[in-house]
Amino acid sequence: MACGEFEVITRYFNRKTTNRRDVETGIGDDCALLNLSPNQTLAISVDTLVEGTHFYPDIAPEDLAYKALAVNLSDLAAMGADPAWLTLAISLPHVDHQWLQSFSDALFEQLDYFHMQLIGGDTTRGPLSMTLGIHGLVPAGKALTRSGAQHGDWIFVTGTLGDSAAGLAILQNKLTVSTAQQREYLLKRHLRPTPRILPGQALRDLATSAIDISDGLLSDLGHILHASHVGAKIEQSQLPLSSYLQEVVEREVAINFALNGGEDYELCFTVPEVNREAIQLALDNLGVESCCIGQILPSSEGIALYDQGKKLIYQPQGFDHFSA
Amino acid sequence: MACGEFEVITRYFNRKTTNRRDVETGIGDDCALLNLSPNQTLAISVDTLVEGTHFYPDIAPEDLAYKALAVNLSDLAAMGADPAWLTLAISLPHVDHQWLQSFSDALFEQLDYFHMQLIGGDTTRGPLSMTLGIHGLVPAGKALTRSGAQHGDWIFVTGTLGDSAAGLAILQNKLTVSTAQQREYLLKRHLRPTPRILPGQALRDLATSAIDISDGLLSDLGHILHASHVGAKIEQSQLPLSSYLQEVVEREVAINFALNGGEDYELCFTVPEVNREAIQLALDNLGVESCCIGQILPSSEGIALYDQGKKLIYQPQGFDHFSA
Repeated sequence: MACGEFEVITRYFNRKTTNRRDVETGIGDDCALLNLSPNQTLAISVDTLVEGTHFYPDIAPEDLAYKALAVNLSDLAAMGADPAWLTLAISLPHVDHQWLQSFSDALFEQLDYFHMQLIGGDTTRGPLSMTLGIHGLVPAGKALTRSGAQHGDWIFVTGTLGDSAAGLAILQNKLTVSTAQQREYLLKRHLRPTPRILPGQALRDLATSAIDISDGLLSDLGHILHASHVGAKIEQSQLPLSSYLQEVVEREVAINFALNGGEDYELCFTVPEVNREAIQLALDNLGVESCCIGQILPSSEGIALYDQGKKLIYQPQGFDHFSA
Repeated sequence: MACGEFEVITRYFNRKTTNRRDVETGIGDDCALLNLSPNQTLAISVDTLVEGTHFYPDIAPEDLAYKALAVNLSDLAAMGADPAWLTLAISLPHVDHQWLQSFSDALFEQLDYFHMQLIGGDTTRGPLSMTLGIHGLVPAGKALTRSGAQHGDWIFVTGTLGDSAAGLAILQNKLTVSTAQQREYLLKRHLRPTPRILPGQALRDLATSAIDISDGLLSDLGHILHASHVGAKIEQSQLPLSSYLQEVVEREVAINFALNGGEDYELCFTVPEVNREAIQLALDNLGVESCCIGQILPSSEGIALYDQGKKLIYQPQGFDHFSA
């Protein structure tokens, strides 16, 4: 069915569901115009999702919309930023009205939930892919970065790790599970990760560094260590594993998923001893589980992995699109 | 040749050639962090270029880098904004070092020219395409929009129109030219359009509306008319045509290229009588040609096209990716 680019934008994406006061001009001019309050810093992140690389061709459009936004929101969460505006560039091989309706409905449902506004984008013909540009706001000087971890800080993660890798393995028919509850829980953790927006904001004055776990704990923690010029020890018996994950795979596989699986979109952050209690209280108040999994060491130590006090040999295995 | 995603970013895109003072954190964290001055409004635009849809597979990487940025800068120009930051999401089928070196060299040359900084992006495996997010700054309340044209305003364009369409026709082997100068000039107008950044800024307090000509004069002027709730008359004998364009095609074709060809990336803007002299002076000072091609009418008139005073019948023909 033929449908013009302008019609696609007007029909599916030019909705005024959330009208933010800081949006002077949204969709419909050469640029969007945005106004910041004094003492706000702008946080920007960009993520691309390509069919075949980041998602399967048969993914439900509402799952794709959810995950595309959640992945980007997770980057804001890792900075302690408050979500504000989204740009969406989407390439479509053809115009499928049912697909666009489901995709855009799910997208706007999430945008509304986070009080975000779609301010612009581009609709082009091409292989299915999308690039989201997410814009958040953070009080000046309060953003969490990767570079503040200090020797002696405790290393924490939110939630549980490895569930998303198990969910992906189920989708890939590499893992079979016994119960519908296991399947449902693990698939949801893969397809519908929760961006840790409020926990990220709660960490602002308390954590020394933070990152979201997209490529795998060891890989992403590695970015903190690199940026902060420090090392770390991780006690793998302390890794938070869900009961479902522990039911469906051996302990060794569960730990490998937790260390290297990626796409959990939990936060990994570092906390000085003096703020440890305050952070646990702040996260408890939000109903978010957190878990201390190790400690920051001098940079000479690299990442030292322990199992119940016994040092292990570890090989980094983070995900990389262009690896051989 | 295998090359990791992180290595691609580090090697080709993480260059600190322009260090803007408003960039608190650039590439290398979960988000970039940017600080605006009080009384600055942020202007954001996004454009995607897909191989096969927006450029030919054999385009030189330096031409692609130039055009991808110029097309985005043109959107800032149309708002009167000052370029500041770029995000680049690029999908590559494989890692071609020579291609990446040429592409990134050309990109950074242009970024430096406009005192812009690459603040983030994404590198993924997929069919060749890229999405650029461009961020500019404009004094609060001074942005040019599409919605301010008033009955009686004069309609102006910068430069000449239709050259880019002729350049494209040459690339498509649909047009042959006699001299190397004709070919070089017209190809350059297609491959290396000049974003009208300084003219756009000069129009800030003087023009009532502006747009850049990407889809074709009539189509883009149509956006101004729609947003401003006005009509227009265009005198096609006043259209600025380059001598090269007039040498290589019949007058009728030249006028069609100028009206509907698109990708000229000149500015079309409206000017009240009281500012007409000031604008021509301001553009003369920048060495930029401009030309009055018509006048704003009440909305009931639509777009009325005239040739030496004689009214013509016109069919809109703007470019649309999803048209049948």
